[in-house]
Amino acid sequence: MHAAIPLYPRFTGLDAVGPYTVLAFAPGWQVTFVAAEPGPVTDDQGGLTIEATASYADLPDPDVIVVPGGLGTIEALEDQALVRWIAEAHEHTRWTTSVCTGSFLLGAAGLLTGRKATSHWVLLDQLAGMGAEPVDDRVVVDGKIITAAGVSAGVDMALSLLARTNDVPTAEAVQLVIEYDPDPPFDAGSAKTASPDLRARASALLR
Amino acid sequence: MHAAIPLYPRFTGLDAVGPYTVLAFAPGWQVTFVAAEPGPVTDDQGGLTIEATASYADLPDPDVIVVPGGLGTIEALEDQALVRWIAEAHEHTRWTTSVCTGSFLLGAAGLLTGRKATSHWVLLDQLAGMGAEPVDDRVVVDGKIITAAGVSAGVDMALSLLARTNDVPTAEAVQLVIEYDPDPPFDAGSAKTASPDLRARASALLR
Repeated sequence: MHAAIPLYPRFTGLDAVGPYTVLAFAPGWQVTFVAAEPGPVTDDQGGLTIEATASYADLPDPDVIVVPGGLGTIEALEDQALVRWIAEAHEHTRWTTSVCTGSFLLGAAGLLTGRKATSHWVLLDQLAGMGAEPVDDRVVVDGKIITAAGVSAGVDMALSLLARTNDVPTAEAVQLVIEYDPDPPFDAGSAKTASPDLRARASALLR
Repeated sequence: MHAAIPLYPRFTGLDAVGPYTVLAFAPGWQVTFVAAEPGPVTDDQGGLTIEATASYADLPDPDVIVVPGGLGTIEALEDQALVRWIAEAHEHTRWTTSVCTGSFLLGAAGLLTGRKATSHWVLLDQLAGMGAEPVDDRVVVDGKIITAAGVSAGVDMALSLLARTNDVPTAEAVQLVIEYDPDPPFDAGSAKTASPDLRARASALLR
């Protein structure tokens, strides 16, 4: 199984590397970071630069794509090479997936019309502008499209993807490899239960 | 606050990028990937190459270090430049931290003698060989040293670190930024409750 993760300026690191790590540890998987041209791409916090090792043209027909989000997603909606690659790759994929605001890029590629999808909580409602039906769940499956909520949700998404592409025992083995028995130090990870003050403070960090 | 994350061949992606993302989103933090020399370093699955943007010499006195683990950790124990940098940086840090088998590198630097520490479940018992007292918890604090269990535990560690370096409201805001309200698809992430068969299948993926 060959997965491609497109990188664009100001992606969020964990959006890309969470699913990467899960899928890359699974037996029989190859995961490739792609961009318009091979080369370094820097994240939205400015400290993480990942090498794209293939161009979109090099990898037109991956089995799976995982589109990360990030503070640069809105600008990336105008990146025709990226959006066109997503649209064309989707014709060949077994699964087309996104993390966080990456779902807006699926939308820009025309893939979410009439589909249930999720995104980062800050922008979830606006996903309707892409023709999608926003769903406030952590992982949303509609046909062969799987969208995940913000940033860390990509890990949950990738593990559930493995159960579909491979089998549950494989997904469980990878979950144990990454010792994913989460124990968040605070009860602060869901916008559904966060106070208005907490939501405001979190939103302020996204500028 | 300036955090440094040393990269060495065959680190595990999520070990490094989980804490990176958490800390880099926090206000007032800068996070730098370092190596013996600036340049690309490739992970243990072969598909992720991160650019180290500073050398050890460039950054001798970070406030925080986060040492990732990976399939390359055992070889890295012989990397004198890395081990010496960890030992010397520790003299200046406010917090010295590790994820997964990164704790073995803290041990090689002589930092764990008589200290409580954790690591990836596969190698946890062997941490005693580094003079440490292995503790089967997800995040272990002993003095200014914080060690995290395998791979994904670095996210929990980094959030609890933020509560110490900054304050709880800041940690909560970052937790909401990364929408860390985890929902693992399977109850498979803990070696304490995994069947022998599951443990064997997970171990097989670590070779």
